[in-house]
Amino acid sequence: MTVNLDEDAFGRHMVDRVCVGDMSTRAADLFPDRVALVCGEQSLTYSELDRRANRLGSALLGLGLKHQDVVGVMAGNCLEILITYLACAKAGLICAPANLGLRPSEIAYCFQDSAAKVLIVQDQLLAAAKELVPSLSELQGVYWTGARAPEALPRDAGSFDALLEQGDDAELQVPVFDRDAVQLLYTSGTTALPKGVLTSHLAVTMAGLSGALAHQADHNTRALVVLPLFHCAMLNSMTVPMFTVGARVILAPGFDTPENMLALIEKHQANVIMFLPMMYGQLLDVAAHGNHDLTSVTRAVYAMAPMPDERLRALHELFPNADVVLGSGQTEFTPATCMQRPEHQWSKAATWGTATAMTRVAIMDDHGRLLPRGEPGEIVYRGPQTMNGYLNQPDKTRESFQHGWFHSGDIAWMDEDGAIWFTDRKKDVIKTGGENVASIEVERCLMEHETVAEAAVVGLPHEHWGEAITAVVILKPGARADEERVLEHCRERLAGFKVPKAVLFTEEFPRTGTGKVQKHMIRSEHEAYYQPG
Amino acid sequence: MTVNLDEDAFGRHMVDRVCVGDMSTRAADLFPDRVALVCGEQSLTYSELDRRANRLGSALLGLGLKHQDVVGVMAGNCLEILITYLACAKAGLICAPANLGLRPSEIAYCFQDSAAKVLIVQDQLLAAAKELVPSLSELQGVYWTGARAPEALPRDAGSFDALLEQGDDAELQVPVFDRDAVQLLYTSGTTALPKGVLTSHLAVTMAGLSGALAHQADHNTRALVVLPLFHCAMLNSMTVPMFTVGARVILAPGFDTPENMLALIEKHQANVIMFLPMMYGQLLDVAAHGNHDLTSVTRAVYAMAPMPDERLRALHELFPNADVVLGSGQTEFTPATCMQRPEHQWSKAATWGTATAMTRVAIMDDHGRLLPRGEPGEIVYRGPQTMNGYLNQPDKTRESFQHGWFHSGDIAWMDEDGAIWFTDRKKDVIKTGGENVASIEVERCLMEHETVAEAAVVGLPHEHWGEAITAVVILKPGARADEERVLEHCRERLAGFKVPKAVLFTEEFPRTGTGKVQKHMIRSEHEAYYQPG
Repeated sequence: MTVNLDEDAFGRHMVDRVCVGDMSTRAADLFPDRVALVCGEQSLTYSELDRRANRLGSALLGLGLKHQDVVGVMAGNCLEILITYLACAKAGLICAPANLGLRPSEIAYCFQDSAAKVLIVQDQLLAAAKELVPSLSELQGVYWTGARAPEALPRDAGSFDALLEQGDDAELQVPVFDRDAVQLLYTSGTTALPKGVLTSHLAVTMAGLSGALAHQADHNTRALVVLPLFHCAMLNSMTVPMFTVGARVILAPGFDTPENMLALIEKHQANVIMFLPMMYGQLLDVAAHGNHDLTSVTRAVYAMAPMPDERLRALHELFPNADVVLGSGQTEFTPATCMQRPEHQWSKAATWGTATAMTRVAIMDDHGRLLPRGEPGEIVYRGPQTMNGYLNQPDKTRESFQHGWFHSGDIAWMDEDGAIWFTDRKKDVIKTGGENVASIEVERCLMEHETVAEAAVVGLPHEHWGEAITAVVILKPGARADEERVLEHCRERLAGFKVPKAVLFTEEFPRTGTGKVQKHMIRSEHEAYYQPG
Repeated sequence: MTVNLDEDAFGRHMVDRVCVGDMSTRAADLFPDRVALVCGEQSLTYSELDRRANRLGSALLGLGLKHQDVVGVMAGNCLEILITYLACAKAGLICAPANLGLRPSEIAYCFQDSAAKVLIVQDQLLAAAKELVPSLSELQGVYWTGARAPEALPRDAGSFDALLEQGDDAELQVPVFDRDAVQLLYTSGTTALPKGVLTSHLAVTMAGLSGALAHQADHNTRALVVLPLFHCAMLNSMTVPMFTVGARVILAPGFDTPENMLALIEKHQANVIMFLPMMYGQLLDVAAHGNHDLTSVTRAVYAMAPMPDERLRALHELFPNADVVLGSGQTEFTPATCMQRPEHQWSKAATWGTATAMTRVAIMDDHGRLLPRGEPGEIVYRGPQTMNGYLNQPDKTRESFQHGWFHSGDIAWMDEDGAIWFTDRKKDVIKTGGENVASIEVERCLMEHETVAEAAVVGLPHEHWGEAITAVVILKPGARADEERVLEHCRERLAGFKVPKAVLFTEEFPRTGTGKVQKHMIRSEHEAYYQPG
């Protein structure tokens, strides 16, 4: 796709466009010498960040890339991934940072699917990238960060810094449209191959404004970003909101040790932090031994899974000035759809929170009817943070948008305050003998048994039951596998139709790169379990 | 214009659209029973407000109105003006509240220019509206607020409440697009006939998010709106930001007495207030005699004209918890382009502030070149708060967007922090004998003279000078008109070429509805002053 606008139309278009690349331009206007990004010993001011983004954007166009071509990225948290993101935005290209938790074959699939034209690779990942390159037919060039000597690569290659040198500092003059895609992130789907989520400039801009409001951020805010930027939450709910208000992002390459995390928070006087519940647990485990001043933290966000009150109390002691709130969402909604409001952090700590500023949340039945408060059904969303669609998957895209709402695939009910009480993944509802059973309920019951460390409950094809409830269980170290004892435990606690028909024992579950159990893999492994012969 | 989308495309469109009418829907989802609006003894919760907006929207469509038809409003601050605004947004119509400060013939011109199909009229303005109706050829109906008995009107007429009864509570299912116009406000232009500014759903939504960020508002915020809602500042910088976060708006019909304003702030525990500098002066004059608790105010915004440090100090005493900040902008930018940041409220109190979250501000010379910091030139803007254009004025629209920026017509320079130091209106630069003279400089000098109450300086056609600098002066009560004394005062203080060629004395200046001096009227009145014969 090429874009041609006559000079008048182009000039007019530059005035009122929504472009993610304008974030750093605006921040550089207001805060040229303020630090935008810190990563270890490196840092960039807003004017340096914006200039580099312009440079790289013009260099990428200089390579011959066209409007909405894809630039693949293989990198952990580093300055270059964000420079590349802004550069693509300014140049009308699409930035596709690979999820490094995926298997190499899956990463190759993503870059094939998106016909990536250029790869930007962090130096330590260069060997892994070399393996992929032969399978990428559209690839024109590979550029790596750092100063390592180049290794032989099959196509045009060079260093990131040399590519930057080819570009120009001046603000890019390129038509970019509100609903052009700016990013392509693959969901690590629990049910199928990764799906490429195309997200627009408009959606990311809305996520930035809405996130800044949720975090009560202004230009004096400092956010600590530790989890990978190739996840939508870190990119769009943490980093982009900070760019929106000209605030500072402190990048860490990863959660190495909890001691280091506490030291980083203290050193940089971070205000906004986001970790997973288990990471907060690790922070608490070591905090007693340290002597850190953590009073700067005003907002500690955790994702997806609720935390028990006891841990919340401990976190409030650790971060005495912080609201500790759960945020939820999905890549298809850039991603924050719900966030606990401060006044709900105790009373509704078990919920997913309430709708974010630009998102509507509702509960829908299987026939497309919105349900009243209190009735469980599928969570559906509306709002301009919506993805454009799944790349190359028009059917799946259409399916997601049935009945004029985006379908989350999650089951929940909504209370009188609009707070979302999650009950299960929709696909995890097992239909057995005419009854619907939420697998999570059976899993909770199983995990109360003294021998069970983890449980995954799936429905397997069965002549009589349709789907037969089947428990797959990982035992605690030293525990003995005893199917009948486990079933007896369930019979005492669950309605008869919810009791598993069988208990299978295993050492490990198949998981996604981010650690989610892949139930579809479990299902296909055991598909024939109840089949005759 | 009619809009047809097939069912699939329509359903998809409903998911990711940007529509101003969705603000009250989202707030009603989260805060159904919270008060959205208070006006005297009346109030509406968010669910009541949203339901009424749906009702009115469907009733207006029931009258046969089509996509992007104009609904005129003649009303001061009342609940109905905001119900109508949201109803038009939901229905894909354009809401055009008339500036009641305009002359009746100008209001008639606005409704003629916009081909208004329906008029919503506040009961006390019905007599004035009746006068206009015969000149409005497209008008189909007139609906008035309150319960007064209907008077004879030339076309279909009825009460606002009866029209509401014809509508339906259900959420409207109407295609509305990001860049459809949602409002039409006429600028009370200092240089010509009122121009109709068409503003999109996208622009208003951005103004709402950006305003909520600037005011640090959340759903617990209470904003007091006293100045008229038919001004863009009250509608888009105060009310819409509150709707965006589900906060409360307290409406007052006007600034009746300063005592009443202080009582309102106290009674409603208002957090955000916005007044003109002279109104703050009046509040200060009476505050000493009262005993009001004004600690709820966290943000006191003033508009356009700076205030001296002495008054700022007094205001900080009056509102001990408030940031006192100046905001500036124009209707064409929905309207807030700049706002003083709290850290600048003293050090840069004389500036217009710095760019708001979604706006770029720059300084441009006459050839379309952006100027470096410190150099004066025209203030130009970019960002998605841009108007769609001036209604029926493609040439004026094109002229405003020259060189890829919106031209404000204001002259200023920008300092190292991006703060805007206003110097003059561009049109007020007088070109005389090859020199450019900022009229404001001459006016300031004149106002230092002991006999001068107010001064307006214009350039009048002159054979030798091109434009001759001419002072028009209102004297202080009891002062004697003495041209030579005034000129002598100027000669002592100004460069020779800046000294007026003549001083004319008058009783009153022609002014716009909002009190701005209409220099074009002064110019045309005295056009022939230097002409021979």
